Amino acid sequence: MYYSLKDIEQIVDDCNELYHVKREPARLYEPMEYMMSIGGKRIRPKLCLLTYAMLQDECIDESVLMPAMALEVYHEFTLMHDDIMDRSDLRRGCPTVCRKWNENVAILSGDAMLILAFRYLYHVQKPLLREALDLFSLTAMQVCEGQQYDMDFEQRPVITMEEYLEMIRLKTAVLLGCATNMGALLAGADGEVCHKLKQFGICLGMAFQIADDYLDTFGDEKVFGKKIGGDIANNKKTWLLVECFRRASASQRKHLESLLQMGEAQRAEKIAAVRALYEELGIREAAENESRAWHRKALDILSSAGIPSDRDVFLRMFADKLLRREK
Amino acid sequence: MYYSLKDIEQIVDDCNELYHVKREPARLYEPMEYMMSIGGKRIRPKLCLLTYAMLQDECIDESVLMPAMALEVYHEFTLMHDDIMDRSDLRRGCPTVCRKWNENVAILSGDAMLILAFRYLYHVQKPLLREALDLFSLTAMQVCEGQQYDMDFEQRPVITMEEYLEMIRLKTAVLLGCATNMGALLAGADGEVCHKLKQFGICLGMAFQIADDYLDTFGDEKVFGKKIGGDIANNKKTWLLVECFRRASASQRKHLESLLQMGEAQRAEKIAAVRALYEELGIREAAENESRAWHRKALDILSSAGIPSDRDVFLRMFADKLLRREK
Repeated sequence: MYYSLKDIEQIVDDCNELYHVKREPARLYEPMEYMMSIGGKRIRPKLCLLTYAMLQDECIDESVLMPAMALEVYHEFTLMHDDIMDRSDLRRGCPTVCRKWNENVAILSGDAMLILAFRYLYHVQKPLLREALDLFSLTAMQVCEGQQYDMDFEQRPVITMEEYLEMIRLKTAVLLGCATNMGALLAGADGEVCHKLKQFGICLGMAFQIADDYLDTFGDEKVFGKKIGGDIANNKKTWLLVECFRRASASQRKHLESLLQMGEAQRAEKIAAVRALYEELGIREAAENESRAWHRKALDILSSAGIPSDRDVFLRMFADKLLRREK
Repeated sequence: MYYSLKDIEQIVDDCNELYHVKREPARLYEPMEYMMSIGGKRIRPKLCLLTYAMLQDECIDESVLMPAMALEVYHEFTLMHDDIMDRSDLRRGCPTVCRKWNENVAILSGDAMLILAFRYLYHVQKPLLREALDLFSLTAMQVCEGQQYDMDFEQRPVITMEEYLEMIRLKTAVLLGCATNMGALLAGADGEVCHKLKQFGICLGMAFQIADDYLDTFGDEKVFGKKIGGDIANNKKTWLLVECFRRASASQRKHLESLLQMGEAQRAEKIAAVRALYEELGIREAAENESRAWHRKALDILSSAGIPSDRDVFLRMFADKLLRREK
């Protein structure tokens, strides 16, 4: 069976009943269900299944669907715990689990989601299970490393571009790489193809995160769905800020440092001033170019993987959609 | 090769270098190493390996040792997160991770330990991996359920004995059952033997938790290694308290309720008064009997598993040691 992009998206979006885990104790299972119900684009399982369907004509059964959904459950677990660590009140416009319930509930329900993600791997066909477990657990560990670097970097005034790129590679990109690698692995692809598709996913993830940084500062508020400038207000280490420090003259750097001192009371002023400096230094255009360059690199790697060109069309469409998104 | 109890204990105790994960970022990996270094009796891997060696003459290699250690890493993960949820300052006489570092570090390092536990399962021989993953992940989920029930019960004045027993079964006993079941599974035992050894471990776990409750109130402070009476001071739902509510007359119940209202300022007085009521109602002796009954039940199940009687001697010795402990 040959699946279109729409087919794959439908399969993943229809998967929601998986989360209707009506079980006791309620305060363990309800937050898990809530977290999955408030949405998300389900990028990771879609990437996994698109890669699988590109390489394999077999029907998508639970031996493929469940490990694909494991990626989503894992991702939602990271959000639940990140929201505690960042003291976030809102996630996708809804109260976070740690606010709607409390921190303890968010810790334990998050733990249970992480366990559930590993539990979903049970469905992988026996000969592939060990490799799937290795890939998934290594990736999960790397995502934790990325989150720790992100928190470490909050305590430092400046980080290098190299440090920034390594942090987002771990925190964001490797999970997309895991998704494409998992799809290839489950499709029975050889090591070389798996490796290339992993690199494809990682580059896509880099493009995705840099685009995300861009949108938080230069996106359209109505389309983006949340307030613009949050990263600037919180002095978050984004591609834009790191590049700005890199390009700034001594006096511009001093100016930037003074802007970063501004508090929540001057939020609008701070955002406007930092944006102006970004424009002045060409950071806006540079960020667009950087994201586009990673996207191009991803597509070049995909081209080198020896996939018949009619087969990779939906994966390319999905990547385009992902990066042309305005939210 | 035939391993003695001492051999097995040595193998597990020598395993510490496994945790010397000198890796970056330090604030992710150092707390994991710290948590493993401050000790614990390593009951779960020892139970797993003793069960394995009882059934199988093959050498203990990493395909057995790593999943056994996964049980310990998982257990330490639960302690790290429980200490956040309980706002604990000390664990085994040392500062908890959430105090020595902070809550965020304890959340994320705990997550990484949970992932590491699953990562250790990689070493299970391929034909057994799926079953091992199923067993381990189901158990891990049950332990979370037990922890949630424990927190739910804190909010209620009284719980039934049935509720208490189910809570400790999930929170404590199933992980010991997982250890013995895993040992049997890795040794290639059939489903019937695996099931019996799991039940053996669960009963042992029930005996162990009830003995723990007993020791917190009636243990010898010097041997127990921590202050006696902590459970009473914190109104913790223990076997003793639940049984006390069950046996109390209307007036004794009123008296008990008034004692539970006493605050930290009257700590010593409260502990003495509740202990006196326990003695009056025969709770002390009843708790000893209850723990002993679960121990006996465990040994009866072991006897029914068809193990040659010279082979189960070390497992029995270990169970005795575990329950005769005074700390």
